[in-house]
Amino acid sequence: MKALIYLGNETVEIQEIDRSRRADNEVVIRVAHAGICGTDLHIFLGDMTQRVTPPHVMGHEMCGEVAEAPPDLDVSVGDRVIVEPTVFCGRCPACRRGHTHVCQNLNFMGCDSPGAFQEYWAVPADRLHKVPDSLSDEEGAMIEPLTVAVHDVRRVGVALGDRAVVIGGGPIGLLVALMARLDGAEVIISEVNPFRVEQAKAFGFRTVNPQGEDLSQFVDDWTGGAGADLVFEVSGSASGARVMTDLVRVRGTIGLVGVHATPPPVDLHQFFFRELSLVACRVYEPVDFDRAIRIAASGQIDLKAMISKVIPLADAQRGFEEMKNGGDVMKVLLDCRG
Amino acid sequence: MKALIYLGNETVEIQEIDRSRRADNEVVIRVAHAGICGTDLHIFLGDMTQRVTPPHVMGHEMCGEVAEAPPDLDVSVGDRVIVEPTVFCGRCPACRRGHTHVCQNLNFMGCDSPGAFQEYWAVPADRLHKVPDSLSDEEGAMIEPLTVAVHDVRRVGVALGDRAVVIGGGPIGLLVALMARLDGAEVIISEVNPFRVEQAKAFGFRTVNPQGEDLSQFVDDWTGGAGADLVFEVSGSASGARVMTDLVRVRGTIGLVGVHATPPPVDLHQFFFRELSLVACRVYEPVDFDRAIRIAASGQIDLKAMISKVIPLADAQRGFEEMKNGGDVMKVLLDCRG
Repeated sequence: MKALIYLGNETVEIQEIDRSRRADNEVVIRVAHAGICGTDLHIFLGDMTQRVTPPHVMGHEMCGEVAEAPPDLDVSVGDRVIVEPTVFCGRCPACRRGHTHVCQNLNFMGCDSPGAFQEYWAVPADRLHKVPDSLSDEEGAMIEPLTVAVHDVRRVGVALGDRAVVIGGGPIGLLVALMARLDGAEVIISEVNPFRVEQAKAFGFRTVNPQGEDLSQFVDDWTGGAGADLVFEVSGSASGARVMTDLVRVRGTIGLVGVHATPPPVDLHQFFFRELSLVACRVYEPVDFDRAIRIAASGQIDLKAMISKVIPLADAQRGFEEMKNGGDVMKVLLDCRG
Repeated sequence: MKALIYLGNETVEIQEIDRSRRADNEVVIRVAHAGICGTDLHIFLGDMTQRVTPPHVMGHEMCGEVAEAPPDLDVSVGDRVIVEPTVFCGRCPACRRGHTHVCQNLNFMGCDSPGAFQEYWAVPADRLHKVPDSLSDEEGAMIEPLTVAVHDVRRVGVALGDRAVVIGGGPIGLLVALMARLDGAEVIISEVNPFRVEQAKAFGFRTVNPQGEDLSQFVDDWTGGAGADLVFEVSGSASGARVMTDLVRVRGTIGLVGVHATPPPVDLHQFFFRELSLVACRVYEPVDFDRAIRIAASGQIDLKAMISKVIPLADAQRGFEEMKNGGDVMKVLLDCRG
């Protein structure tokens, strides 16, 4: 079968490999579509060499069909499913507190073990969620990033009428903005990429491009000098970490979602002076998948409109490069069917 | 009357000035004792030139006796009182949410207006708390810093059996450790000053001197690889900001208490990876004074043992210099009686 192999040096290529053999507790999924996540891009760019050693199969945002399954499961051959890619140990201190999604020995499939960018993917049988019939395979592949946003907004907490700033209008930032708006907040998005600015506008958001507009001044005017109730830092950039403390009101909360590879300077004096809180968010808990699936099925958000292109697995190199170069893309899906 | 005047250039001197005249809504207090706070030291060292312009009278940790008062107050001439030095506007967005203690136009007495380092101090009549008879004037002067610690521990939240690390064992750090222990936590204190290490030990705390011992390793061993439930960063140092993220468990909380004059690098990736929270704490709310006074009166903590020396107001320069040079002092009180 075909698999997309990450070789290091910003290179991926299609190789013919043996089809995964199913262990007793596993299901084999025929992958239909799989999205390229920011994490996959980090791997591609060589930022995650501590966790990922080439050759490696990336990918975890996906939708597919069960091809092989053990008996007596909730899912059967032919069911359309997505994967909750967090395999936990159950024994570490984090697991013992119930925080299995950030298990101290977490196997995040697609990072710490082979991922979805292949025709067939063997995964633990207990990590599956069924996809409602009303959703296409492409939409199904968007549920995992939607689940991230559901988790972020649930963990940070939105109150009706809150004003929120989302720093970074990529797929996760846009989904966070959509979820926060569904939860009753007024939301603006700060983004520099013109294509993503237009996408955010198409979704009805007021946007600020901080390269041309003074974001702090905008938020000050917008909130009558109070500052935003919530700021979601999704950009993972040093400039995002710098500006986040300027935007939030006394006793407001910063939701930290972006990945900051190196420790940026953070204005702890502003934290102190205005008694700010920071709540960091990573991946999702099982309950977030249940919610994200219900929200996706409800049609309240247009997941399809976030898919910029669907390209064959064989063209993945081009997809990674477009994402790296900040091209006109929001979400790129790979069609993994042979 | 005599007042201690901050002249800039790390210099204070006693001057004879006119006694404060009482406005209609004010009370005049004859100050008995007043502590030198870390904030006063910051002013002395020239770190707060944006807020404080010499000549200036510092001081807000105090205890004294009402010398003049308008009629029909809860306090009368002769009552022993302490001052809640947070004068708020009542109109800004922070006040409108009830966060008057971090009012956006806060007049923090002793910083933004004249303070307690003088014989007589005129303060708004609604900023007073009576001192129980069981407490001496010296102990009374310790209630304000105790209130800071009550606020910090209440805001961060301690659960029975939590393990907490306090980074920085000065007066506030030691009081935070004491309050967290009263609230059911096991607490260790990280401190480099040998005198303060000994004081912390005398209060029954396990201490770690990070200059000679590996603090992260200690906490890892202590908590069986989990990390501390709570970390209070009270040092205001870049090294404190660096190490704080290493010490706390998955989903743990960092209480930010220390003043960081310049934005230090902060490991936001650790925040993300372990879903940490940071809760910043400044001063106190009125309820914290009520609690601190009850706790002080209960005798559950030995405030007297934290007072290293009581020196005449005229010797204040020496007190500031000892604090600056990291001498053998915990809390230095000034005797402000002429």
